[in-house]
Amino acid sequence: MLEATRFKLIHSDEKFMLEALKEARKAGKKGEVPVGAVVVKDGKVISRGHNLTERKQTALVHAEMAALAKASKKLKSWRLNDCDLYVTLEPCTMCAGAVILSRIRHLVYGADDPKAGAVDSTARVMENGKLNHRVKATGGILREECSRILSGFFREIRKKAK
Amino acid sequence: MLEATRFKLIHSDEKFMLEALKEARKAGKKGEVPVGAVVVKDGKVISRGHNLTERKQTALVHAEMAALAKASKKLKSWRLNDCDLYVTLEPCTMCAGAVILSRIRHLVYGADDPKAGAVDSTARVMENGKLNHRVKATGGILREECSRILSGFFREIRKKAK
Repeated sequence: MLEATRFKLIHSDEKFMLEALKEARKAGKKGEVPVGAVVVKDGKVISRGHNLTERKQTALVHAEMAALAKASKKLKSWRLNDCDLYVTLEPCTMCAGAVILSRIRHLVYGADDPKAGAVDSTARVMENGKLNHRVKATGGILREECSRILSGFFREIRKKAK
Repeated sequence: MLEATRFKLIHSDEKFMLEALKEARKAGKKGEVPVGAVVVKDGKVISRGHNLTERKQTALVHAEMAALAKASKKLKSWRLNDCDLYVTLEPCTMCAGAVILSRIRHLVYGADDPKAGAVDSTARVMENGKLNHRVKATGGILREECSRILSGFFREIRKKAK
């Protein structure tokens, strides 16, 4: 029974990460670093977002920020207590902070970001016990797929630069 | 000469913090927690922002985020390399992360935020040596004035709640 429950959870995490990957592909097609995110409530995707840093020329529209803003708009509340965020790449400091501020219940990410990730790689923002909200975080869901889309994107950029 | 230069620098920090305080007052008048920010380039304020969390119902429009977004729009670039950010309250994790991402040169803040401040109070995000950009941070500029506007706001709220 425990195993069955666990399998179901993992399965649902992968299902939503595939949705986040769809968003990452949209970013890649626009020439943006391919990172995507979705917010999930009651087993349904309620908002989607992808990285638009170059197109919008602001560092503030990472995939997570776009998805969180849309979720708040949809629910007409900045408190996203019963919502989970799925994102293809480990969130940076800004996004990790936004996840906490928005009172997200569970953060699920795919690939690690050794250069800027702030959940595990360069810092452990989620483990700051002094803050008044704690977010459960799980990394490595569809890690390979989430990494591959990024490495493919950067390979293409290097090719074009030659 | 050194003292004169130092005095000039302090003086200019206070001048810009007074501009950030004007923004904080705008937030307070709208019933928002009174925090304000300005972005300064070449000795001039190029953008202003104040907290709009309740009005916009998203946790993502802290004063700093609003000011940074407007500065990027004005300069048509997400890189704010030669810009300084003045904010009346110590930035939270999200905003501290956004300041780093935006490549701000110098962060200047007024009051400490013992509950959520991520520059010195609950974490030291700016001192994360693993990130590829470092931001100089200075706190305590017009600390009294920046604190007073916040404590006045919360006192009023408590009065109304009685």
